[in-house]
Amino acid sequence: MHVFDEAIALSHAGGDRFDGATHPAWANMVGPFGGITAAQLLQSVLLHPQRLGDPVALTVNFCAAVADGPFTIEAVPARTNRSTQHWTLRMLQGQAVVMTGSAMTALRRDTFGVTEHAMPSVLPPSQVAVAPVGDRPEWVGRYEMRPLEGGVPAQWDGSDQGHSRARLWMRDGALRPLDYPSLAAIADLFFPRLWSRRATRVPLGTVTMTVYFLADAQQIARVGNGFLLGQAQGQRFHMGYLDQTAQLWSEAGDLLATTHQLVYYKE
Amino acid sequence: MHVFDEAIALSHAGGDRFDGATHPAWANMVGPFGGITAAQLLQSVLLHPQRLGDPVALTVNFCAAVADGPFTIEAVPARTNRSTQHWTLRMLQGQAVVMTGSAMTALRRDTFGVTEHAMPSVLPPSQVAVAPVGDRPEWVGRYEMRPLEGGVPAQWDGSDQGHSRARLWMRDGALRPLDYPSLAAIADLFFPRLWSRRATRVPLGTVTMTVYFLADAQQIARVGNGFLLGQAQGQRFHMGYLDQTAQLWSEAGDLLATTHQLVYYKE
Repeated sequence: MHVFDEAIALSHAGGDRFDGATHPAWANMVGPFGGITAAQLLQSVLLHPQRLGDPVALTVNFCAAVADGPFTIEAVPARTNRSTQHWTLRMLQGQAVVMTGSAMTALRRDTFGVTEHAMPSVLPPSQVAVAPVGDRPEWVGRYEMRPLEGGVPAQWDGSDQGHSRARLWMRDGALRPLDYPSLAAIADLFFPRLWSRRATRVPLGTVTMTVYFLADAQQIARVGNGFLLGQAQGQRFHMGYLDQTAQLWSEAGDLLATTHQLVYYKE
Repeated sequence: MHVFDEAIALSHAGGDRFDGATHPAWANMVGPFGGITAAQLLQSVLLHPQRLGDPVALTVNFCAAVADGPFTIEAVPARTNRSTQHWTLRMLQGQAVVMTGSAMTALRRDTFGVTEHAMPSVLPPSQVAVAPVGDRPEWVGRYEMRPLEGGVPAQWDGSDQGHSRARLWMRDGALRPLDYPSLAAIADLFFPRLWSRRATRVPLGTVTMTVYFLADAQQIARVGNGFLLGQAQGQRFHMGYLDQTAQLWSEAGDLLATTHQLVYYKE
């Protein structure tokens, strides 16, 4: 069993409740990697017997540090329409709410389509070096990352890098075909934009993340074990909060998802 | 009383419940303008006696058409930390859930700050003509809009406009100082990007919207009755769903908010 599937394995506890646990392979500095928590929340929707259609949107709110150990997810189908369904999500540890969120699933059909945000022209993954994991948290080792720009600063010298844009090729380190949960996890994979821009580590953490899934299940399945090109940038850093906007393309140039997050920082 | 304040007026029904009603001045083609519904949900948080801090993020999910008439909002402080608070939101009409959502409020403090997405260089509002309301829905008349590009097509001839980017100056038609609820409403003000790009009206509707508030209360108050520059663009249109990413700057060039939405379309 792939270590990602181990991490998102949930047991249906009846009704809208699913039990799971954090997984040591996905540990961050404190608690688990936010992306794996997002994937677990999405997985509860995918496992729900009343689910209609595939994910089109996911919002997860990081209310408190998730403690290492068991958790319960509540995935409530708050509203079911003919071709769409809205989900309300909570993750509980004991009586404490550690995550809230919402998701939307839908039956998709053929329509007019066009991509406006084209994949930038960059070197192919085979010509970009793999970033060493070094002393980064355990979860970083789960991915193969090939940074083009905006990765871990070469020197932590506090110099202003002028912008926070990151571009990198990335995929699961142990190969696994892409699906909605892994795409949700990868949406949170970017190195902190503030650390990158300032070449300085300050305390920070994602407080909310939204993912829009812009590809249908067939297009995601076609990615297989291929790389994704990720691009992320902060738009404004102000009084303790910054927003990050990001895009994830397949190697073939399909824009699979766009994602946004708000990040708290301390100084 | 300003017609915006009339629309967001809620009465505290005890606990986490607030009663309100749709307002005819904000009618859309079916039900109310989504922006005013977003503002009503945010207002329930602002009125809640347990609120801590100012809004930093808001996500609203348009689960079903809001019917003209009364509604109840539930605003639950799901998690309160030392300087942050996470809210779970629902709007009910009778027993039906018509909106879900989440919000985050926080105490902000001085930190490092920088804007990466600078306001584009455009003509000032005084040199841009006001768009006529024409046969557009009632709520459009509540705003003064001065489009620079990507507004209502001059001809509905089905010609591809090449891109969906919109830029416009905008403010309340009857002047009112900007605050968090009016900023949330304005985040949903853009003319549909799909209609603009294709010069064709097809059935569509926003299904989820997220707003990140990147300015503190003082900076928002300084805007007063001034204009905001809004920019919005779809990144991908695919199988019935498109994402719109947008920025809202003050005339002084402060990036007050970034906002994203997913829009359903039929053909």
